[in-house]
Amino acid sequence: MRDLYHDELDDIGHSLVAMTHLAGTAMERATNALLDADLNGAERVVSDDTAIDALRADLEHRTFQLLSLQQPVATDLRVLITTLHLVADLERMGDLALHVAKVARMRYPDVAVPPELRDVISQMGEVALSLVDKVAEVIKGRDVELAKAIEAEDDSMDALHRKLFTLLLSDNWAYGTEAAIDMALLGRYYERYADHAVGVARRIVFIATGEMQSGSASRPVS
Amino acid sequence: MRDLYHDELDDIGHSLVAMTHLAGTAMERATNALLDADLNGAERVVSDDTAIDALRADLEHRTFQLLSLQQPVATDLRVLITTLHLVADLERMGDLALHVAKVARMRYPDVAVPPELRDVISQMGEVALSLVDKVAEVIKGRDVELAKAIEAEDDSMDALHRKLFTLLLSDNWAYGTEAAIDMALLGRYYERYADHAVGVARRIVFIATGEMQSGSASRPVS
Repeated sequence: MRDLYHDELDDIGHSLVAMTHLAGTAMERATNALLDADLNGAERVVSDDTAIDALRADLEHRTFQLLSLQQPVATDLRVLITTLHLVADLERMGDLALHVAKVARMRYPDVAVPPELRDVISQMGEVALSLVDKVAEVIKGRDVELAKAIEAEDDSMDALHRKLFTLLLSDNWAYGTEAAIDMALLGRYYERYADHAVGVARRIVFIATGEMQSGSASRPVS
Repeated sequence: MRDLYHDELDDIGHSLVAMTHLAGTAMERATNALLDADLNGAERVVSDDTAIDALRADLEHRTFQLLSLQQPVATDLRVLITTLHLVADLERMGDLALHVAKVARMRYPDVAVPPELRDVISQMGEVALSLVDKVAEVIKGRDVELAKAIEAEDDSMDALHRKLFTLLLSDNWAYGTEAAIDMALLGRYYERYADHAVGVARRIVFIATGEMQSGSASRPVS
């Protein structure tokens, strides 16, 4: 028989996976809303963000309760402390999806993304989704190898981010200052989303191996 | 006589204040480097960021050790958990100062900031410093009233951020796409720096009162 304590630890793990899926769905819907000027889709991302925030508050509360009542040590303590870091990253990923959705909403009924940038933004959206799917798998299985694949995929995001800036700064840019700023900020939202995914993966590698990876997922833009 | 445990808790508090001052000095130097095209100043912010990162790692380690060995409950547990959140915010504030310094470095020997934007960027730098000084005082004293003043000052930062965008998007903008993107991203770095300062203040109010303030310091740009 499992005890209540370990049942609650398992439940927290399931909620973390659910929160990861919510952050992924938010970015998927935000990217679609952005590329299709879909106001309803954008509004849905905005309203659904409260669920992600509520899940963070709930998970922080439950984690604090377990720390307080059970006073875990060793791996259990490490898992609970890591949970606090993960929910912060996942909430922030939801916020970044929200920012993408708000760009879509602000430019509606226009499509915020100029035709020449559709491909690169669409690819950034795809990499973001692939990353968040892998993050969910890593949380489920604490899979160190998959965590390394996440680092490689973050490099793809950085390459797309550089490509976006090359397009924005080309002599052929014909969409004016406002669109350039929109696109530069969008690029940053996707890049930061990927950085937080990497942050989650590194934290889980830390639980699995006890070693924090060096290097920073946070890179300057342009 | 104080015991070793409470001495260590005090030491962690002192290190948090020291980390806050480092994050403040970094933004002060980055803003000066940005406005004066001071390459040495920018390089110093870049190289000093490793000290902020190291302090975060050290504080996380010491906090984990105390949680593991002392198994605190109630307020002590809350203080230690909050410490983990604070060092994450403070490290990120250091990163944002680093991003500002990198814009200065990238545009050297030119001054990155066009003359018309000097005032607003300079004021954003001043608000950032005022915020971080208040954050240090809040950490020292857990002063709930001062934490509220931080919220008000964050509103000033948001107003400056909106003013910056108005200038960027005016018909008179004469500095091209690259400078517009630089300034939009700089605006975001200062605004996020302020958001993290608010985050720290809210966490400390939470320790002092047991109530987490509602509302989000994270606002969409433009």
